[in-house]
Amino acid sequence: MPGELSIEQLVAAVSQRAGPGLAVRIEGNALHRVSAVAPLQAAQAADLSFLANPRYRPHAANTGAGALVLTAVDRAALFATGAGPRALVICEAPYTWFAFAAQVLFPEEPATAARAPSAVVDPSARVEEGASIGPQAVIEAGVRIGRGAQVGAGCYLGPDVQVGAGSRLHPGVRVYHGCRIGARCIIHSGAVIGADGFGFAPYRGAWVKIPQVGIVAIGDDVEIGACSTIDRGAMGDTVIEDGVKIDNQVQIGHNCRIGAHTAIAGCVGIAGSTTIGRGCQLGGAAMIQGHITIADGCVVSGATAITRDLREPGFYTGIFPFMTNRKWERSAVLLRNLDELRERVRVLESRFGRPPSESDS
Amino acid sequence: MPGELSIEQLVAAVSQRAGPGLAVRIEGNALHRVSAVAPLQAAQAADLSFLANPRYRPHAANTGAGALVLTAVDRAALFATGAGPRALVICEAPYTWFAFAAQVLFPEEPATAARAPSAVVDPSARVEEGASIGPQAVIEAGVRIGRGAQVGAGCYLGPDVQVGAGSRLHPGVRVYHGCRIGARCIIHSGAVIGADGFGFAPYRGAWVKIPQVGIVAIGDDVEIGACSTIDRGAMGDTVIEDGVKIDNQVQIGHNCRIGAHTAIAGCVGIAGSTTIGRGCQLGGAAMIQGHITIADGCVVSGATAITRDLREPGFYTGIFPFMTNRKWERSAVLLRNLDELRERVRVLESRFGRPPSESDS
Amino acid sequence: MPGELSIEQLVAAVSQRAGPGLAVRIEGNALHRVSAVAPLQAAQAADLSFLANPRYRPHAANTGAGALVLTAVDRAALFATGAGPRALVICEAPYTWFAFAAQVLFPEEPATAARAPSAVVDPSARVEEGASIGPQAVIEAGVRIGRGAQVGAGCYLGPDVQVGAGSRLHPGVRVYHGCRIGARCIIHSGAVIGADGFGFAPYRGAWVKIPQVGIVAIGDDVEIGACSTIDRGAMGDTVIEDGVKIDNQVQIGHNCRIGAHTAIAGCVGIAGSTTIGRGCQLGGAAMIQGHITIADGCVVSGATAITRDLREPGFYTGIFPFMTNRKWERSAVLLRNLDELRERVRVLESRFGRPPSESDS
Repeated sequence: MPGELSIEQLVAAVSQRAGPGLAVRIEGNALHRVSAVAPLQAAQAADLSFLANPRYRPHAANTGAGALVLTAVDRAALFATGAGPRALVICEAPYTWFAFAAQVLFPEEPATAARAPSAVVDPSARVEEGASIGPQAVIEAGVRIGRGAQVGAGCYLGPDVQVGAGSRLHPGVRVYHGCRIGARCIIHSGAVIGADGFGFAPYRGAWVKIPQVGIVAIGDDVEIGACSTIDRGAMGDTVIEDGVKIDNQVQIGHNCRIGAHTAIAGCVGIAGSTTIGRGCQLGGAAMIQGHITIADGCVVSGATAITRDLREPGFYTGIFPFMTNRKWERSAVLLRNLDELRERVRVLESRFGRPPSESDS
Repeated sequence: MPGELSIEQLVAAVSQRAGPGLAVRIEGNALHRVSAVAPLQAAQAADLSFLANPRYRPHAANTGAGALVLTAVDRAALFATGAGPRALVICEAPYTWFAFAAQVLFPEEPATAARAPSAVVDPSARVEEGASIGPQAVIEAGVRIGRGAQVGAGCYLGPDVQVGAGSRLHPGVRVYHGCRIGARCIIHSGAVIGADGFGFAPYRGAWVKIPQVGIVAIGDDVEIGACSTIDRGAMGDTVIEDGVKIDNQVQIGHNCRIGAHTAIAGCVGIAGSTTIGRGCQLGGAAMIQGHITIADGCVVSGATAITRDLREPGFYTGIFPFMTNRKWERSAVLLRNLDELRERVRVLESRFGRPPSESDS
Repeated sequence: MPGELSIEQLVAAVSQRAGPGLAVRIEGNALHRVSAVAPLQAAQAADLSFLANPRYRPHAANTGAGALVLTAVDRAALFATGAGPRALVICEAPYTWFAFAAQVLFPEEPATAARAPSAVVDPSARVEEGASIGPQAVIEAGVRIGRGAQVGAGCYLGPDVQVGAGSRLHPGVRVYHGCRIGARCIIHSGAVIGADGFGFAPYRGAWVKIPQVGIVAIGDDVEIGACSTIDRGAMGDTVIEDGVKIDNQVQIGHNCRIGAHTAIAGCVGIAGSTTIGRGCQLGGAAMIQGHITIADGCVVSGATAITRDLREPGFYTGIFPFMTNRKWERSAVLLRNLDELRERVRVLESRFGRPPSESDS
């Protein structure tokens, strides 16, 4: 079976990918073979599973997985010696080890270097060795596609677009003229890179379009989700640094800069000219105002609107807590009149600010 | 005129579609003929219109519609005997009866079974009788397309995708490898089914991609709106049960399960591994956190963030009530300092907790 | 160099485009030549830059731009006579003047009237002079494409679609049957015009689809961003009036009407049957409920939910102010119990409602 490995082999393969720093200890049968991954509750003898979230300990205790990666603490809490899965991989970062192990078990299919006959490729485009271009793709003049890159069916690469070595554009990605994508990027279907930023000046009750003459420059190892949109710069460029991970339906406005290894969950919107630091995490549907700066290492909860600079790393939230609609109706009225409530407290204080013993004579 | 029917014929046709349970009574001229539908204010003699929302009663009273469907209560309130539209259809569920009637008047155009010459179809794909494949579509190896299904222009079906009988994919739908779509589904342009879920593990300041090896499994009679995205499972599958209706620009993360006949309005985001019950309704731009469970029959207001399990059916809301910006500026400050206000009340209470009569001597 | 002009020539060219009403005064070397635009901090001698936001005054003071457009007030505050950039353009609306100047320096590339051989164009489609149709586009029966319009690669125009003169559809735009787009519109990649509105009636625990038989009618000079979706009307039409500007990932439901010259930022959702007035501005990720009316000239902050009519022009906001997560946790609890806090204040007031002097004896 392709990808079937003993735990011993898997540990060695992960170690080769991850380098030192993900030390593990095997317990049980190191020769037990696995060929797939599965969640704790569905896993069977040929599956590797993982326990990272303590919430799922009960599932781990009863898992049918042939191999399980978990922390030493969880291992001690869950299984008597010799009990549990046939092989345990004990590791300080089980989720990370699992990620590498899954990559080993499910290697990327190597692209077949091929240019589909139905693709329309300008003769001036430079397609390097091992790159593939899918059916119905359109590649304009001056495009450069790096070694082993894959451009999926129906993709559109505008004039002078660059796609780095080993990058993969899934079917139906569109990249406007001049934008640059680094190496080993993954871009999912429906994503649009380099459309015009939203720039208009008011004039006599109407809007005058400001030509958007910058580009989008995307670093290496960036992933961009389905139907996400990243606008080209108005004058300077929109920059996505190395290792940024962007989920689906994310909108990034013109002239933003997203720092390296920042992760942006689905449905996030980032208005124009905002700079986001390195290693940030933006929760789903967070909304980031334009022209602000967010420090390295900030974490923003989902559904939170960030309306001014975040100067310090930290964990920021702004969500209206949900409640039953009936209760919310009352709360909304109170919230609309919060200043009145404050005033009532102030009046009480002004009357009774001193202890009764003093005010009474 | 195609689709022109008398009210009598229309009632019979609806009854045939809906089965018993939508009893109606005709008043006025049952032979009056209609050929189209129109809103109350624009409707003319050949139009059928409906009154479902009491708010529109004044429009109904003055409608020029030749036929009107409404409740007995509205009928009694609005028209003297013999007055009003030429035909009245009296029904407990006028909106539902109208829906069926509109389907009768505007039947789906039967697809022409055809494979466009420009489509690229792998020889191993199995296209059943009556199915159509539009221009520039790309159908990969192992795909199965059921009887009478329509795959629109520029659609992409990855390897081993299944599309059930009678389903319709509008132009530019993309389905990644292995995903399954049931029968009689409608998927609108730009939707992406089965892109990778957003799964990464942290390692040394960067992110390690977790291969997403599950699929998306979509039941029968599901509708998915334009530019909506449903991610494939990380390990298990993402499941959309029968009869689910999904509007535009909805994002559903990996390993979610959406219960049968749940309706999800536009711009909703549902993070990964969340289970939503049957018959729920999620309002536009609601945001649902990952790894939670929502009970059958929950209704969530638009723009509401659900951040933990909903264990009981109910109507839930969490919207910051809008106000003038000036007033909001004050409210926001108060809200940031709500704990201080509470403390001030507590101090007052601690001083004056007893009635004056007791504290006074 | 193409587009290189002296400031004198540029002023004349802008004046020709804008007509009277954008009076400017040149200071310094009116013969200084510029060929590009750049932000204040990056601009060099051959660049035009602008100062519109007082926040960027320090950047303006040190700009290397050869030419700078700014207000008389900023001009007086920033530069001694003879100092600063080689040419100053002094203007009451520098951002607007800059917009026109950038249009002059970066003229739209004239479309090459051409029909790509790979495009599939129904013989009944009427393509007027100077229009271009990109590779892999699909043009159905009865389509009309106006003079000089550009239909990009992989676009889909359904039966009977109309595209006005000079409009530009970027690659991968999809327009459903019967929709009409005016003149000089710009529609970005991935946008979907005219998909079915979200209309279903409940019946026996399931949903009955209501045929969506209206269209989308788009006026002149409208811009629509990448992956935005505008649904066709259920019965009447969805209408986008002249000069409306719509950013990326905006969702507009069936039967909405958007008034002329309204600007809608990214990720906004507008539910069905809502009417928005002329000259409104909706901030990013604002959510507008269905079946409401918003007056001309309303401004809505980003991330704000508008849940009922706005009858007066004004500036409206409803954002939960973000804070540290720790503080938010406390605030959320207080907010859930705001009615209890109010009650505590009421109790205090009922006990101590009268001034101490009166209650004390």
